[in-house]
Amino acid sequence: MADYKAPLTDMQYLFREILPWETLQELPGYQELDTELADAVLEEGARFSEEVLAPVNRSGDEQGCRLEAGRVHTPEGFPDAYQRYARGGWPAINCDPEHGGQGLPRTLSFLLEEMVCGANLSFGIYQLLTQGAYHAINIHGSEELKSTYLEALASGRWAGTMCLTEPQSGTDLGLLRSRATPIEAGGYRLTGSKIFISAGDHDLTENIIHLVLARTPDAPAGVRGISLFVVPARQLNEDGSPGKDNGISCSALEHKMGIRASSTCVLSFEDAQAELLGELHGGLRGMFTMMNLARLSVGVQGIGIAGAAYHAAVTYARERLQGRDLHGARFPEQAADPLMVHPDIRRMLLTMRAWTEGARALILRVAAALDVSLEHPDPECRRDNHEFVSLMTPIVKSLCTDIGFDVANLAVQIYGGHGYIRENGVEQYVRDARITQIYEGANGIQALDLVGRKLPEHTGRNLRHFFHPLQANLESWQQEPQLQQLVEPLAKAFGRLQRATAQLALKGLQDPVQAAAPASEYLRLFGLVAIGQSWVQMAESCLQPESQPNPAFCQAKLDTASFYMRHILPLSSGLFASIMAGADALEAFDEDAF
Amino acid sequence: MADYKAPLTDMQYLFREILPWETLQELPGYQELDTELADAVLEEGARFSEEVLAPVNRSGDEQGCRLEAGRVHTPEGFPDAYQRYARGGWPAINCDPEHGGQGLPRTLSFLLEEMVCGANLSFGIYQLLTQGAYHAINIHGSEELKSTYLEALASGRWAGTMCLTEPQSGTDLGLLRSRATPIEAGGYRLTGSKIFISAGDHDLTENIIHLVLARTPDAPAGVRGISLFVVPARQLNEDGSPGKDNGISCSALEHKMGIRASSTCVLSFEDAQAELLGELHGGLRGMFTMMNLARLSVGVQGIGIAGAAYHAAVTYARERLQGRDLHGARFPEQAADPLMVHPDIRRMLLTMRAWTEGARALILRVAAALDVSLEHPDPECRRDNHEFVSLMTPIVKSLCTDIGFDVANLAVQIYGGHGYIRENGVEQYVRDARITQIYEGANGIQALDLVGRKLPEHTGRNLRHFFHPLQANLESWQQEPQLQQLVEPLAKAFGRLQRATAQLALKGLQDPVQAAAPASEYLRLFGLVAIGQSWVQMAESCLQPESQPNPAFCQAKLDTASFYMRHILPLSSGLFASIMAGADALEAFDEDAF
Repeated sequence: MADYKAPLTDMQYLFREILPWETLQELPGYQELDTELADAVLEEGARFSEEVLAPVNRSGDEQGCRLEAGRVHTPEGFPDAYQRYARGGWPAINCDPEHGGQGLPRTLSFLLEEMVCGANLSFGIYQLLTQGAYHAINIHGSEELKSTYLEALASGRWAGTMCLTEPQSGTDLGLLRSRATPIEAGGYRLTGSKIFISAGDHDLTENIIHLVLARTPDAPAGVRGISLFVVPARQLNEDGSPGKDNGISCSALEHKMGIRASSTCVLSFEDAQAELLGELHGGLRGMFTMMNLARLSVGVQGIGIAGAAYHAAVTYARERLQGRDLHGARFPEQAADPLMVHPDIRRMLLTMRAWTEGARALILRVAAALDVSLEHPDPECRRDNHEFVSLMTPIVKSLCTDIGFDVANLAVQIYGGHGYIRENGVEQYVRDARITQIYEGANGIQALDLVGRKLPEHTGRNLRHFFHPLQANLESWQQEPQLQQLVEPLAKAFGRLQRATAQLALKGLQDPVQAAAPASEYLRLFGLVAIGQSWVQMAESCLQPESQPNPAFCQAKLDTASFYMRHILPLSSGLFASIMAGADALEAFDEDAF
Repeated sequence: MADYKAPLTDMQYLFREILPWETLQELPGYQELDTELADAVLEEGARFSEEVLAPVNRSGDEQGCRLEAGRVHTPEGFPDAYQRYARGGWPAINCDPEHGGQGLPRTLSFLLEEMVCGANLSFGIYQLLTQGAYHAINIHGSEELKSTYLEALASGRWAGTMCLTEPQSGTDLGLLRSRATPIEAGGYRLTGSKIFISAGDHDLTENIIHLVLARTPDAPAGVRGISLFVVPARQLNEDGSPGKDNGISCSALEHKMGIRASSTCVLSFEDAQAELLGELHGGLRGMFTMMNLARLSVGVQGIGIAGAAYHAAVTYARERLQGRDLHGARFPEQAADPLMVHPDIRRMLLTMRAWTEGARALILRVAAALDVSLEHPDPECRRDNHEFVSLMTPIVKSLCTDIGFDVANLAVQIYGGHGYIRENGVEQYVRDARITQIYEGANGIQALDLVGRKLPEHTGRNLRHFFHPLQANLESWQQEPQLQQLVEPLAKAFGRLQRATAQLALKGLQDPVQAAAPASEYLRLFGLVAIGQSWVQMAESCLQPESQPNPAFCQAKLDTASFYMRHILPLSSGLFASIMAGADALEAFDEDAF
């Protein structure tokens, strides 16, 4: 099988050329960051992912996690890789310097996450959960909670989880039943059963900090009665070190399609000591802090897998000899030409490349806005960027995970029968990627979030943070003759998106089903346009002579942009037609007839 | 997990209402067949699939096949299920009565195959290979070969395989190296190494008849030097019973993404006794006899999985309570409404249904033509139907397996996190379905077969067997006001297909890459139109009052047809645009830049 290779050149290019440096340099995180430092961090991250994490990816899948005597053991090599990860300071990369973090911006940490998850998604999940817990406590926690937990999480000594789902309560959190009862001495005792808890137990850290949604005894029904609690697996001693067990047991491990080295636990909480995080009955807010960050990170995971699968497929298409170039033998001295010469193989490779690089650029654009939304001195600028991120979060999560899955499948297709054999590693990408379309809010839920919440929010202002800059982009690009063949199809697709948006807004006001029914198609149309915009941005930068240290690299960008516009963006027309057809066919169908 | 349920009502409806009975009744296979008999056979097949094959599907996946002391053991319950299958006469269903078969038409046997593979794809594969061997020997074999092998294959006492692939030779059969040396006493000795041999060894039958591609010593290079041989696993005694081992050993079993209960073997042939099947150096012809039939059957497998996944998803969407109807609580007495009420879930279910039922109808149309092509008394009618089948084979194989995979994935999405857990069974559909897009000619190869062989063949006559009847259909349907909303989009998509065909023909003449590059998209456009035609055929039949024993069934067909036209067929516009954009973007890309 092909070794994992981080897409370092593309990442370094994006970091240098695509980020809005004028704005970013006003941020604290960027004041000490120049492109040399960023290059060095990315190179180190690439090396670590390739040399430490990738080698235990397939063995981790084969072995899976084991539950023995109530404790979860991760596969061989995982504890060691984790120790090296923590020692290298990677968990702290975007944490607050105040709490032992390195304070690097999201733009950089998302690229590192992409490498980690491309090399080993199961490994990446442990870290994602820890980060989520860190940020939720950092944003919503009291000073005491912060000083108790943040440094240990940032250092990687302790890990985190998000405990939401219960057997009867998945997407519908209003149904959850776990109970937290206040105790006289202060704090709560939490009892309940949670399922699908990623990293719920493992042997990587000395403690695990669960963030748990539960109801207090007199809480109102539904989601308005949910609170968020911090519940350590081991209670803390006076000196803050982990002490005795806190009444949490892992009663089962799920056997899953993929991410088999990531533990997915059934957890029972019995009178576990718990502390309230954030406001009483305000649990959803805290949870969404984790969730929104996690959703972007899940999009990053999708592109991590896509990048890994693309690299594997290219390697195979160069090495595997089969058939002849239709224009005549390319290597007559060999028994056959490499797969690469076949147009259908090239079509698949270019499709993979256009989706993956386009989505990576889009994610970086959103990551930059996230950094600005968190750190910029100007509150209006923070707000605008927050709204943009909020709008784009469901799109990044859903689109990029669909891309991860589709690109992984194309890699299997290029490998042919060899791709179906576990030994060759590419089918694992498919199985691993599949969860990203489901967890942290299934992709259909993302689409409903986009259409039902993000579009109408602030009377549509979120949307303007995408539409207006794109409109301005198009006007400026239309002055540039070399961009015409890219800009024209993008403008057309944008027109479709605008009309589809108007239809959804109008019809959705009369009947929410009219907006909900085509939500997934609308999200995808939106994503196609957003990635198209990223492609023209890249093409524009590659046309500038001063940014062309590598003319072959720039030519490849221009050619891929052109492929995207001609062969992928046209999908927008079918989506548009389907959206405009409304929800009548869907509503007409008798439920009993399914 | 949901039990398998065969789509019996739909199958019986299609068999009664959609088949061209006037033509079929002239065939020997149909002379004793009325719809009552067909109904009874289908009911029996459904019961067998549901009660015998489905229960060992998931356990078979968990256990997989084992290689012990050089022999392959199928999972628990497989040998027993196989014995019951053989005793029930199922292997013989479409075999020649002369050789112990039941002589039933393909129209019926494809529906039965769909049930078998929907219930248990791994099981179905063993049978598919046996059928392939049976038909190849029946068509190309000498009388002696026929009398030696056919009855034992038809009875299921012996099984068959197709041994094509070698490590260096997959799609490119010209590279294969296995050698068959003639011996003085007659016959050949065959030596070589084969990989990916489905059903290459197992414990289901007392003998396995391998059909093996190999070269004779003085054969020309490339595919023109390949011959096909019959090579039994155990040599035959004088009385025809299996005797001593024939020098064939299974040196390894592949560990695969799915179809884990189907053995995929590395086989070594060492001086195995072999007999030539068909003409010397004419091996590809014989192989393609198996292959073409097998390709249609693989399309059937795809729809088998799609039907199973659809049923599982509908069951779950009815049972699982989560969230509320956007129009207000549907079941206020329950904690939540069933998934079914959500528009995005209904969209997925209708998408699954529209693809699956449409593809099933298309397959049955092709199966009917296959029966006519094999059995009709009029040679011209046989030829026309053969050409139609030949044209449609790559479309059925590729499109229906893509549908199988996509529908299985939608089932997982509807199950959410629960779909990712092995225990619930739906993720197995995804893993099992994935191979169907690869084996018997990867789907990209099907597209090249369509564009490079089937379109130009007989100066385009094949195509007319699809275009002319559709044109006639459209003209007649346009007279029918109730069909207008279906016919109009179909006519539009057909126009796109016609223009895309003209472009491919024209550009492909100048440069074969121009036809090869968009081949996959062209195939899908073709398939969209073909399934659209099937949907209008069904809608038409459901509008006729005499064919409406079940008005709810007919209304569901009409509504699904309408959904297909509004929400799926529009995909044709994006495919069309991509095809018309030509191959320039593909060819421009520098190979070294991948």
